[in-house]
Amino acid sequence: MIRIAVDAMGGDFAPECNVKGAVSALAANKEIEVILIGNEEAVDPILKGLEYDKDRLEVIHTTEVIETSDEPAIAVLKKKDSSLVAGMKMLKNKEADAFVSAGSSGAILVGGQIIAGHIGNVRRAPLVVEVPTVEGKSLLLDCGANVDAKPEYLLQFAIMGTLYAKYIMHKENPTVGLLNIGTEEYKGNALTRAAYPLLKECDQINFVGNVEARGLPFGEADIYVCDAFAGNIALKTFEGVGKALLKQIKASLMTSFSGKMGGLLIKPSLKGLMKTFDSSEDGGAPLLGLNGLVIKAHGNSTDVQIKNAILQCIGFAENDLTDKIEKAVEA
Amino acid sequence: MIRIAVDAMGGDFAPECNVKGAVSALAANKEIEVILIGNEEAVDPILKGLEYDKDRLEVIHTTEVIETSDEPAIAVLKKKDSSLVAGMKMLKNKEADAFVSAGSSGAILVGGQIIAGHIGNVRRAPLVVEVPTVEGKSLLLDCGANVDAKPEYLLQFAIMGTLYAKYIMHKENPTVGLLNIGTEEYKGNALTRAAYPLLKECDQINFVGNVEARGLPFGEADIYVCDAFAGNIALKTFEGVGKALLKQIKASLMTSFSGKMGGLLIKPSLKGLMKTFDSSEDGGAPLLGLNGLVIKAHGNSTDVQIKNAILQCIGFAENDLTDKIEKAVEA
Repeated sequence: MIRIAVDAMGGDFAPECNVKGAVSALAANKEIEVILIGNEEAVDPILKGLEYDKDRLEVIHTTEVIETSDEPAIAVLKKKDSSLVAGMKMLKNKEADAFVSAGSSGAILVGGQIIAGHIGNVRRAPLVVEVPTVEGKSLLLDCGANVDAKPEYLLQFAIMGTLYAKYIMHKENPTVGLLNIGTEEYKGNALTRAAYPLLKECDQINFVGNVEARGLPFGEADIYVCDAFAGNIALKTFEGVGKALLKQIKASLMTSFSGKMGGLLIKPSLKGLMKTFDSSEDGGAPLLGLNGLVIKAHGNSTDVQIKNAILQCIGFAENDLTDKIEKAVEA
Repeated sequence: MIRIAVDAMGGDFAPECNVKGAVSALAANKEIEVILIGNEEAVDPILKGLEYDKDRLEVIHTTEVIETSDEPAIAVLKKKDSSLVAGMKMLKNKEADAFVSAGSSGAILVGGQIIAGHIGNVRRAPLVVEVPTVEGKSLLLDCGANVDAKPEYLLQFAIMGTLYAKYIMHKENPTVGLLNIGTEEYKGNALTRAAYPLLKECDQINFVGNVEARGLPFGEADIYVCDAFAGNIALKTFEGVGKALLKQIKASLMTSFSGKMGGLLIKPSLKGLMKTFDSSEDGGAPLLGLNGLVIKAHGNSTDVQIKNAILQCIGFAENDLTDKIEKAVEA
């Protein structure tokens, strides 16, 4: 049995979507147990209307909620009886294998690192996003957890990303690129120039050198390693340009009759494509290198996304990824 | 008369496109003089076949060429009789108002800062790109010149960007956003957190706070200020996603009959759109804050692009932008 703790109170549609998502996940997979963490008074009435395997669902009562408007570090320290803090503590105490939350991103990142804690020699836990590409998917890490990173963090990100790509994305010998502003070894800022030789010398990864952001949507590398500032800029630009371009295409089609006719005809193809480039059905982004797995689900997660985020934890547990990360980073 | 020096030897299609572009620019505007810098033996035969106003074109002979494979800083110091170094010296000595080069980007950035030199109190010269948006165009600076920037550089970039947006893009009271990974004041890395209060307190700019990269293609701010690493990541992701998405749309249309038919019908609309999101006819990217204007044209510039890069210099000169920048940064 894989034990997955779920923050019932975090997210725009909590607790309803969180509870419903948890129940759907239980139905979809018999190998999991779900621990719903949140206020019983809010959670129980929703559960009452649903059918599920009562042996595999437990509710842990908490009274506080960390809001997205709370200052993350302060909230994590002060709101000790919050669903988010309780979930992180379960990881720390090995009472759960994974914790899923759609709550405050900042609090998840801080809580993961200071309450759940890093495993073994891991220095920092990166937030990992699977980015859609022309070839399939590439990994981008760190996407949001550690700005002002140190070169050795990037090396650890590369090692953890390699394990993720191997065991979760089933890529053989995945390539690692250092996200940079030019391909030559001397290019970049102080961080990338210092990280380059560390990555080059590491025999646990398949390092292919510096890679430019231009190649990201083309899947030029399987894994893109960077600090959280650069990763977040790349990811958000990616999302924004995708949205803007599709908006512009629609608008430009409306300016002529042939465009309108053509637009109707291409609608099915375009819809399929948008789905590939869209992450709204994905579960969430993992934080790697902690005591157990933390999945940061979107703040606006629906029940389907919460369900998917819960199911995402299974591959991690089945492959003992936390254990593998500990050993690989040790070496 | 505006005197514009042109690097005849830099770029993939030099000297032919450079010479032809210069001659086209002369024909397009009677207020400019062009100084072509390069090897006479290569330049003169091309000029011979062209018609132009001989009083407004001068050739300055140089014997060396900085290649893109040269290490920029070393090349700028050692190749003293190169077209690029000669052009930068003309700016320094006020023998030209502007210098256009499609040569080695690195050498242009280094040469601009160490040979042409910063004007007045300007600390660093940012590379400026006009990014296409749903609303028109936004400015992104620094896009490539200064990685590991200091907070006060970002403040100067904001002031210079504001003048550019006002006088060259004709925007009234243009908004300045600090490119960041969240909108709250405390968000970001050490650089953006230190730059925020400087920008907030400056009364020469219309600062609207932190802006995320997601809003870039929507023109959320008129001017995006950042260090060159972040700017380059945003710009290259922008270009890459645009290309990848259009490639995917084409491919997805070919998978069905209705898609193919629709594709034919939308072709004209899509072409217009691609032109808006494409920068291939643009001249080049200015380096602001130097003694005179430097325009970095694309390495693969055609004669049309060289011509446009030369004509781009006119607005700068007519508006005394170099002078305005000197005074604004002084204050």
